[in-house]
Amino acid sequence: MNDDTAPTDLKEACVRAAREVIAEHGIEGLSLRDVARRLGVSHQAPYKHFPSRDHLLAEVLRRCYVSFAEFLDARPLTGTPEVDLASLGWAYLQHAREHPLEYRLMFGTPWPDGAGHPELVQAALHAFNRLREALARQRGPGHTPQELDADALFIWASLHGLASAMHGELMDKLQLAPGVEAGASAHLMQRLSRALGGD
Amino acid sequence: MNDDTAPTDLKEACVRAAREVIAEHGIEGLSLRDVARRLGVSHQAPYKHFPSRDHLLAEVLRRCYVSFAEFLDARPLTGTPEVDLASLGWAYLQHAREHPLEYRLMFGTPWPDGAGHPELVQAALHAFNRLREALARQRGPGHTPQELDADALFIWASLHGLASAMHGELMDKLQLAPGVEAGASAHLMQRLSRALGGD
Repeated sequence: MNDDTAPTDLKEACVRAAREVIAEHGIEGLSLRDVARRLGVSHQAPYKHFPSRDHLLAEVLRRCYVSFAEFLDARPLTGTPEVDLASLGWAYLQHAREHPLEYRLMFGTPWPDGAGHPELVQAALHAFNRLREALARQRGPGHTPQELDADALFIWASLHGLASAMHGELMDKLQLAPGVEAGASAHLMQRLSRALGGD
Repeated sequence: MNDDTAPTDLKEACVRAAREVIAEHGIEGLSLRDVARRLGVSHQAPYKHFPSRDHLLAEVLRRCYVSFAEFLDARPLTGTPEVDLASLGWAYLQHAREHPLEYRLMFGTPWPDGAGHPELVQAALHAFNRLREALARQRGPGHTPQELDADALFIWASLHGLASAMHGELMDKLQLAPGVEAGASAHLMQRLSRALGGD
């Protein structure tokens, strides 16, 4: 690759290279300079697409949220609200398990900056709105936005806590009885169902 | 402080300085060299107490777990198992809210190394065992270790997920209905109670 590469290709290559750098060295290791070096282009080249390292990081993050939402959207819907809400929870945990780096980027690291990146906020909101919608269908009419959001936040917190625990190192040290860790997702889903008034 | 400082004082000073460095620069910023510089002692001095930077970090972490467990233990017990289990959950969330740095160190960052530090494992286990005990009393006799641990893990995951969400930046971006974030702990505790078969 060189500085005459087509702009779209260079932009995509920067995003790919940034993911590689993050996978190898963590978010702290990411710089536009390293990305340029990895691609064999001049130090200035990435700046054509990303005004700063934070803008590149924001684009990496945005794509994580977009593929996460696509994964959630891709599951088949049954038309039975309870089942569709449960399958959303399962899909969340499956995606977290299969994409630990993306999960950590989306849910375990500070965002590139507090104020900007509205497109990143939109991408993150999309996934949470899927949960709101699934919950609203399960509830049927007659709930307030407060009630809906309180339960959406509760569900997300529980899923997020288990996903984080599974990626962390503490789980191995809790001396859990045999089978408990392997069955943790199923148990959580069953408890959530009871907490929300199902079975 | 100089190299002739009493050993106990130097050890304590190293731990205090390490916490300051972590608070200012994150875990990645911690080195024995920086700690020595901050204390005005020779680069070799901290090595008398900590063979490596990871040993110092492990001691910082161990103390986090110990004060966390002390905080949990300090709450008054009522003798009513349901109430005591609930107050354990409240205490967990309160400690997380009041000590965000300690929380992140205990539950959001990799441990210094995988194999060693048995005293660190003991300190971390102590807090989880409090949860096991409170849950066992609430359940009464007749539960298997698997059932107990499955619910202890579920409870911890939910508490941990909410505590992490409250420290993270995503919560602000979810456009939650008014009052939902402020009421999130109470709502979670109420839902957990229902999930576990209470009210």
